[in-house]
Amino acid sequence: VPTGTSTEQSLALAHEAIARCRQIAADTEEPGFTTRTFLSAPMRAVHERLGAWMEHAGMKVSIDHAGNLRGRYPSSSGDGPRLLIGSHLDTVPHAGAFDGVLGVVLGVALIELLAGRRLKLEIEIVGFSEEEGVRFGVPFIGSRALIGEAGAELLARRDVAGVSVADAITAFGLDPARIGEAAQDALGYLEFHIEQGPVLEDRNLPLGVVQAIAGQSRLDVVFEGKANHAGTTPMALRRDALAGAAEWIGAVEREAQAVSGLVATVGRLDASPGAGNVIAGSARASLDVRHAADTARCQSLARILEQAGEIATRRFLNVSWEQRLDQPAVPMDPSMTLLLDHAVAQAGHPVHRMTSGAGHDAMIVARRMPVAMLFVRSPGGISHHPDEAVLAGDVAAALETGMCFLANLEKA
Amino acid sequence: VPTGTSTEQSLALAHEAIARCRQIAADTEEPGFTTRTFLSAPMRAVHERLGAWMEHAGMKVSIDHAGNLRGRYPSSSGDGPRLLIGSHLDTVPHAGAFDGVLGVVLGVALIELLAGRRLKLEIEIVGFSEEEGVRFGVPFIGSRALIGEAGAELLARRDVAGVSVADAITAFGLDPARIGEAAQDALGYLEFHIEQGPVLEDRNLPLGVVQAIAGQSRLDVVFEGKANHAGTTPMALRRDALAGAAEWIGAVEREAQAVSGLVATVGRLDASPGAGNVIAGSARASLDVRHAADTARCQSLARILEQAGEIATRRFLNVSWEQRLDQPAVPMDPSMTLLLDHAVAQAGHPVHRMTSGAGHDAMIVARRMPVAMLFVRSPGGISHHPDEAVLAGDVAAALETGMCFLANLEKA
Repeated sequence: VPTGTSTEQSLALAHEAIARCRQIAADTEEPGFTTRTFLSAPMRAVHERLGAWMEHAGMKVSIDHAGNLRGRYPSSSGDGPRLLIGSHLDTVPHAGAFDGVLGVVLGVALIELLAGRRLKLEIEIVGFSEEEGVRFGVPFIGSRALIGEAGAELLARRDVAGVSVADAITAFGLDPARIGEAAQDALGYLEFHIEQGPVLEDRNLPLGVVQAIAGQSRLDVVFEGKANHAGTTPMALRRDALAGAAEWIGAVEREAQAVSGLVATVGRLDASPGAGNVIAGSARASLDVRHAADTARCQSLARILEQAGEIATRRFLNVSWEQRLDQPAVPMDPSMTLLLDHAVAQAGHPVHRMTSGAGHDAMIVARRMPVAMLFVRSPGGISHHPDEAVLAGDVAAALETGMCFLANLEKA
Repeated sequence: VPTGTSTEQSLALAHEAIARCRQIAADTEEPGFTTRTFLSAPMRAVHERLGAWMEHAGMKVSIDHAGNLRGRYPSSSGDGPRLLIGSHLDTVPHAGAFDGVLGVVLGVALIELLAGRRLKLEIEIVGFSEEEGVRFGVPFIGSRALIGEAGAELLARRDVAGVSVADAITAFGLDPARIGEAAQDALGYLEFHIEQGPVLEDRNLPLGVVQAIAGQSRLDVVFEGKANHAGTTPMALRRDALAGAAEWIGAVEREAQAVSGLVATVGRLDASPGAGNVIAGSARASLDVRHAADTARCQSLARILEQAGEIATRRFLNVSWEQRLDQPAVPMDPSMTLLLDHAVAQAGHPVHRMTSGAGHDAMIVARRMPVAMLFVRSPGGISHHPDEAVLAGDVAAALETGMCFLANLEKA
């Protein structure tokens, strides 16, 4: 195993990986944009494209009954422990070229870098069929199948056209009754993924080692006052729900600024009746709170809701809330993550541990095996947008890190 | 002229006036609700109802070519100076029974209280055809015609069905070419109207003497930042347009609380893209600022916009605004208003001067003649809603005040 590659070689492969991601981006449901949902027609083209590259690199290619593309690169002994490397192949509507796809393409590139040499490890590249949750309103179909948690309830979910997950699998030529066969044990799972945020760019770093995927609380918070005439109701006699919600948005922001690592967002705010000359009688706000530590998240959420209560009481408003999501943080595996730290350092890059504020397949796979995750800088922090990009140097750094990681894992 | 009426008599007439308003509320375009726009079919029934009461009280009834119902009660000399008493007969959709209609019904009741006795004044009761601006998106058609300002541009305005004001006048059996004949000079104009706000109730007063109709500024204010992932964008790297708008809403509220008589309202706020897990890239807010003094209003507006600029700069946002309306305040006539003060006191009620935060026909009529306006308490401040109400005692107080006003005007 090479413990590193020449800068020239890895840069050339990085350019090739970027070109492959852009080719795959042309496999779309919607001409002019990249939109590729669970087992839609263009996914077949993606499988063919990636499958050909996999075979050429010496992998045995299959598609499991969850629609995951899988390429196995055998170990030198023929039955060595297996490492999974993967990410997802579906996209959001009007997506960029790199979210998900880059992780699969980089897995294939790593095998290509081995140039036919076998390791003590078997390596399996996995291209998950679904992660974004676009078509069925429920994410992670591919990785759930991999951990054996794609049950009857998931298979029965229907898209807006009334087609169930099971129907879609059948229509793709697969057998939903055999989805359980997609389940896989392994030594571990490694995921490369674009950061989808501005942190690495802000710190001028190519790579970030993910320490944990943040837990999330999502709520709807509703302030209720009294709709009234904007001209005839003096300030002192108002019960303005929008003014109350606005004050609370400030409190949400201050809480997040005060607690290290916390992000808290109000992204949606609906004032009713919503006319310029009517004081708002009610205001419904979304709240999204994330932190790598569940205790910190829950304590901040409690303070944010307490503030909502205080503001409402002082303003003679009612406030109520409904929890939509309460998802615990998922730590990455400490040992594998340490190996990844070392690999980043060996490849000659600063080691920066960070929290992923977004969910990823690694979060699901972590339920069954040790996982590690490497972020690649996102220029401008842009993601879920056609302008999504990566820098070739950063992709090369990820490849070099991946090679070092494989070497470290062999020795571990 | 009686300078007052017995409490018993005026209370009986008040109950009758309320009953008449409720009868008229049943003349509607929409069964189950009160909705009556410019010269719609139910307006004919209203004219017949009110016209019969007017004739019975000794008035000569006509409908001018703007669709205004007019009832003339001659002076003792036959050519005495004319006082107009009126308000509007159209309604908002799903209206209450008293906004507008009460002022016309009270005018008729005052004539009935005269019981056939003539004054030195001629009195003309006017039921304006349109004030709310619902059908043609432009208000005050009736009172504009009365002051001779219903020109070709107004007649050409079309409703959503493509019917012009002129078409609607023709369809009602009137002649839009003769709308100029609706113009009228007079000694003055008196309007009774429900307050449509909570001030009188809050001060436990039946009546309010309007001193001025507030000037209004209406704007759209747009904050622009950068839409980003709510999970992956740290607080310090955000340009959150909604958080900026929320901070500014607090500044708007504080400005209005600090300046006596000012009301300022943000009633509409649209955040985009408006998803719970996306930081808002832009936020568009309405702003409505009103004050009886134009200087105070314009100074406050300038401070509010300056604050928007400061907030935007500090948060790395852009802010821009568009003025939608800049309507000066309209003072009532000082002499007529003083006569009205005296009448309120003579009728045995506390004199409370106030600003009208809403527009009224008196505001238009003031361009041609001296005007005065009396508010009747609105229980709960409720208006433009089926729950809109008046108290019989307050209506009796308005009637007694009206009788005293007529007597004072005779003597003046």
